[in-house]
Amino acid sequence: MTRGSFVVFEGIDGCGKSSQARRVAELRSAKFVFEPGDSALGAELRRWLLDAATPMTPVTESLMMLADRSHHVATVIEPALAAGTSVAADRFYASTLAYQGYGRGVDLADLEAATDLAIGTCRPDLTVLIDIDPETARARGARRVEDRFESADAHFHDRVRAGYLEMAERDPGHWFVVDGRGPFEEVAGVIDARLDDLPW
Amino acid sequence: MTRGSFVVFEGIDGCGKSSQARRVAELRSAKFVFEPGDSALGAELRRWLLDAATPMTPVTESLMMLADRSHHVATVIEPALAAGTSVAADRFYASTLAYQGYGRGVDLADLEAATDLAIGTCRPDLTVLIDIDPETARARGARRVEDRFESADAHFHDRVRAGYLEMAERDPGHWFVVDGRGPFEEVAGVIDARLDDLPW
Repeated sequence: MTRGSFVVFEGIDGCGKSSQARRVAELRSAKFVFEPGDSALGAELRRWLLDAATPMTPVTESLMMLADRSHHVATVIEPALAAGTSVAADRFYASTLAYQGYGRGVDLADLEAATDLAIGTCRPDLTVLIDIDPETARARGARRVEDRFESADAHFHDRVRAGYLEMAERDPGHWFVVDGRGPFEEVAGVIDARLDDLPW
Repeated sequence: MTRGSFVVFEGIDGCGKSSQARRVAELRSAKFVFEPGDSALGAELRRWLLDAATPMTPVTESLMMLADRSHHVATVIEPALAAGTSVAADRFYASTLAYQGYGRGVDLADLEAATDLAIGTCRPDLTVLIDIDPETARARGARRVEDRFESADAHFHDRVRAGYLEMAERDPGHWFVVDGRGPFEEVAGVIDARLDDLPW
């Protein structure tokens, strides 16, 4: 049995990654997954994470995200890949590095070590970063949920975006950056051309 | 304001650490705390951790424990210590290293890095290890809850005990090992003699 391909879609809120991940999953007969909250345990962790009424440090946020992620890998992602099903994910390990590390200032080396613990050898074949400036994302932003992350300071999303771009630059073999400002179908075309290189 | 003393009680289930921690807290006007589950968020994490019906990998267990711990440190332990209140804890970071690391085989270096992330500079002034063999602990064991940890394999508690002893041996300045087989008052006397050395 050939192992499935594992493609992750990343970017700041409003970049369009959820829609692209769902579209690619349908097009390639892959399984669509998301983080955080894609299991019964994960849904409970997500509820706490998005509850602005429960103050939580960036480190606790990170560890909750990583607990959700390790459970997601063990019970959803790895079983699918091992069975030969490809996986298209809306967020994975890079989200925690971008949001809690670059965005909130949690020590990156510590976060990377904890990430190693959480995901082990389960690494994406490709991470697609849909890059967009926070202003454009905000202008698009239909569903504005005033949760913990949305209510962060003004430059928070700038730091998150810069973190994503830095990770992509450091590992070009496993990252693909696409300009997310164009129309959905245009962005889709650029992504699809790159994804054709992977086995599906 | 002088910072409070932070004393942790560790050992395998049935060693008597909860009772000794509560006793010391009362005697020294310290705050009694426990892990996991000593906050609203923690109680929810504990409920999942002890639910044998939700299969969870040792890594996910570890990350749940660490999320609980970082929240506990930030919202309960550090505020008490900073306000000059001493803290007597039933379990802390060494439990995760002993149970998930030595007991379940999660990589110790990774666990230690994740522990650094979770607790930062909040280190116990002293960890009291109440050492007892698993057979004696089992014989005493009144409340047998068949949760995830209790239902582990036969040698699990041997490995946990050996892990605790190894940690104590490596850092004798911050650990104190007491033989837990004697009567409660006798063990209490040995502990109290050592605790007299700390500022209260």
